[in-house]
Amino acid sequence: MILPDPATPALLGLDWGTSSLRAWLMDAQGRILHAHYARQGILNLPDGGFAQVLSDIRTQWWLADTVPMLACGMVGSINGWRDVPYLPAPAALFQLADGLGVQPTAHGPLHIVPGVVKDGPLPDVMRGEETQIVGMMGTDGGGHRSVVLPGTHSKWAKVEGHTITEFCTFMTGELFAVLMQHSILGRLPATALPDEGQRDAAFVMGVRTARSGIPLAGRLFSARSVVLRNLLERAYTADYLSGLLIGEEIHAGMGAMDMTPQATPVLVGEQPLCQRYQLAFTTLGYPAPSIAGNTAPAGLFRLACAAGLLDQAPSRFHDQKGAVT
Amino acid sequence: MILPDPATPALLGLDWGTSSLRAWLMDAQGRILHAHYARQGILNLPDGGFAQVLSDIRTQWWLADTVPMLACGMVGSINGWRDVPYLPAPAALFQLADGLGVQPTAHGPLHIVPGVVKDGPLPDVMRGEETQIVGMMGTDGGGHRSVVLPGTHSKWAKVEGHTITEFCTFMTGELFAVLMQHSILGRLPATALPDEGQRDAAFVMGVRTARSGIPLAGRLFSARSVVLRNLLERAYTADYLSGLLIGEEIHAGMGAMDMTPQATPVLVGEQPLCQRYQLAFTTLGYPAPSIAGNTAPAGLFRLACAAGLLDQAPSRFHDQKGAVT
Repeated sequence: MILPDPATPALLGLDWGTSSLRAWLMDAQGRILHAHYARQGILNLPDGGFAQVLSDIRTQWWLADTVPMLACGMVGSINGWRDVPYLPAPAALFQLADGLGVQPTAHGPLHIVPGVVKDGPLPDVMRGEETQIVGMMGTDGGGHRSVVLPGTHSKWAKVEGHTITEFCTFMTGELFAVLMQHSILGRLPATALPDEGQRDAAFVMGVRTARSGIPLAGRLFSARSVVLRNLLERAYTADYLSGLLIGEEIHAGMGAMDMTPQATPVLVGEQPLCQRYQLAFTTLGYPAPSIAGNTAPAGLFRLACAAGLLDQAPSRFHDQKGAVT
Repeated sequence: MILPDPATPALLGLDWGTSSLRAWLMDAQGRILHAHYARQGILNLPDGGFAQVLSDIRTQWWLADTVPMLACGMVGSINGWRDVPYLPAPAALFQLADGLGVQPTAHGPLHIVPGVVKDGPLPDVMRGEETQIVGMMGTDGGGHRSVVLPGTHSKWAKVEGHTITEFCTFMTGELFAVLMQHSILGRLPATALPDEGQRDAAFVMGVRTARSGIPLAGRLFSARSVVLRNLLERAYTADYLSGLLIGEEIHAGMGAMDMTPQATPVLVGEQPLCQRYQLAFTTLGYPAPSIAGNTAPAGLFRLACAAGLLDQAPSRFHDQKGAVT
C-alpha cells in the first residue's frame, strides 16, 4: 500500500462572506498547506464574479480539477452564488454534511455548507458560523458546551455532542460601528492620544454598566454623558462604548442562552477581539473563557470528511506547464 | 389703572436645538401671537450666526427691544451661544428660573434656561426638555406624575409638584435612524407600497418582541430574520424596527423609572409620534397615555414669569418705520 504524500492537497476550503474571502488548501489530514485572504466578499466581487475569483485561487495554487472544494458563508445565501436552504436547528454535523448545496464550476462542483435557522416568533439565522462551530466540536462526540463567535453579528450557540441545538444573534459589532460613525456618540472628537492602559480602563467602565439593572437602550446615552460630566476623556469614548455593548452581549447572552456562571463558553474568532471578550467576562465575574481561534478550516475539513468529499482519487498539484505530476 | 392690550407682545420664547429653531411671540397671558420655525439649529446657523438669526426674528415681528427673551435647548450648551451650567436633579421650577444664563445681544439680554444633570456612575443630561416638562406641570403644584418626551433622544422624567426628581435618556430615535440608514437592517429594499394598516401591524409585531424576555441586543437582528423567514414583508421593516425600539423603550422605561402599570406617563411631543407611542403602550398592556402636545412655549412662559422677566415696562410693536407705537 502506498501512503499518500502528506503534502498532497486534498481539499480547497473557502469561507466566503459578505466582505471578505478566506481560502485554505489542506492535506488529507486537514493540515493547512496554504492560506489566502482577499477582500473579495460576495458584495465586492471583481469583474468575472464568483467563477473568476475561484479560478484565480486554483491557478495560484496549481490545483488539479480533482481537488474537491467546500465553501461556507454568504456564498450560499440568496445574494451568493447559489442559494442553499437553511437547515432547522437542532442541526447535527451529519445533517449539515448531507445538506451541502452544489454549484457547478469549470473546475468541478463547488460544495456549499447550508446555514442554520431557528424558527419561531423571533426567528434567527446563521450562515458560516455553523462551520466554525463544527470546527470547534470535540472529536469525542460527547458533552454539552457553548460557543461565542464575536463579530459584526455575534453568535451565541449551544452544542450537544455534534449537534447545534440553539443559538442567538447579537448585533454588537455593527451597533458599535454605526453608533461611532453616524450617531452623536462618535461626534466628540478625540483630544488625547489613547493610552493602552486607559483604553482597557474605559472598556471595563463600559462593561460594568451591564450590571446597573438599566436596560441597554437607557444606558447607550451614557457614552456621551460620562464625557460631558468629566468621568471619561473623550478620546476613550470608543472603548467605553465597546465595553458597554460587549458587556450587554455577555450579560444578555448568559441569560438568553440559560447558562450557569460555570458554563463559560469557548470563544471562536480573532485573537484581539476574543481577548477583549475575555476581559469583559472576567469583569462581570465569570471565569475567563478559552479562545479557540478561527475554527473555520477545521470545520470545513470535518464537514468534507463527513460528506465523503475526500474519498476521491488522490489529488495532485499541476506542474507549471499544467501536467499532473 | 390701564390694562395692557392682550395682544401686546410680552415675551419672545425660543426653543433653539441642535437642528432646528422654534420661536413664539406670546402676550402677557402666555397666549401665542405668532410662531416661527426654521432649520437654523446651532449646528446649521447662517452667516452672522446666533445674533443674525435673533435679529431677523425680531425684525420680522417688529419687536421693540423692551420685549424680554427666553430661550431653552442646545443654545445653552458648550456648543451653543453661551454655556449655561446644568442644574443637578432634583431641580425645582424656581431653581431653573433662578439659574437662567444671560447672553447680551444688540436687543438686550437673551435669557437661557439651564439644562438638568443626574450625576452618579451613570450620569445623564437634558437640555430643552426641562422646559417642556415645566410646561406640562400642573398649576396646582401637587401630585406625582411622569412624562415621556419621545424623540431622537427620548426622555423619561418623574415630576413631584414643580420639581423634576429623576430622568433617563433612551436613544430610540437616533438608534432607529442609524440602523435604518447604515446597518444591514435597512439594506433590504422595499418591494411593496406600504399600506397603513399593515404598517401598524408590523409596528405592533415589533413592539410585542419586548415581552419575549430576550434583551434588545439579542432581538435587533430579528428585523432581518423575520423578513428572511417570510414572517414580514420587507417593505415594513422600518415599522417593525420602530416598534421593536419603542417597545423596548417603554418596557425599559416603566422598569427603570419604577412605575406601576397604573402610573401611565403623559406624552409630550408631536402628535404622530405620540400616537405611535400610545399604540405601543396599549400593545404592551398599559392604559393609553394622554398627549400634551408641544409644551415648550408654556414652559418658557412659566419660567419667564417665575424669573420676573415679564415685570418690565409693557412692550410694544415697532411700526414699520421703527418708532415705538
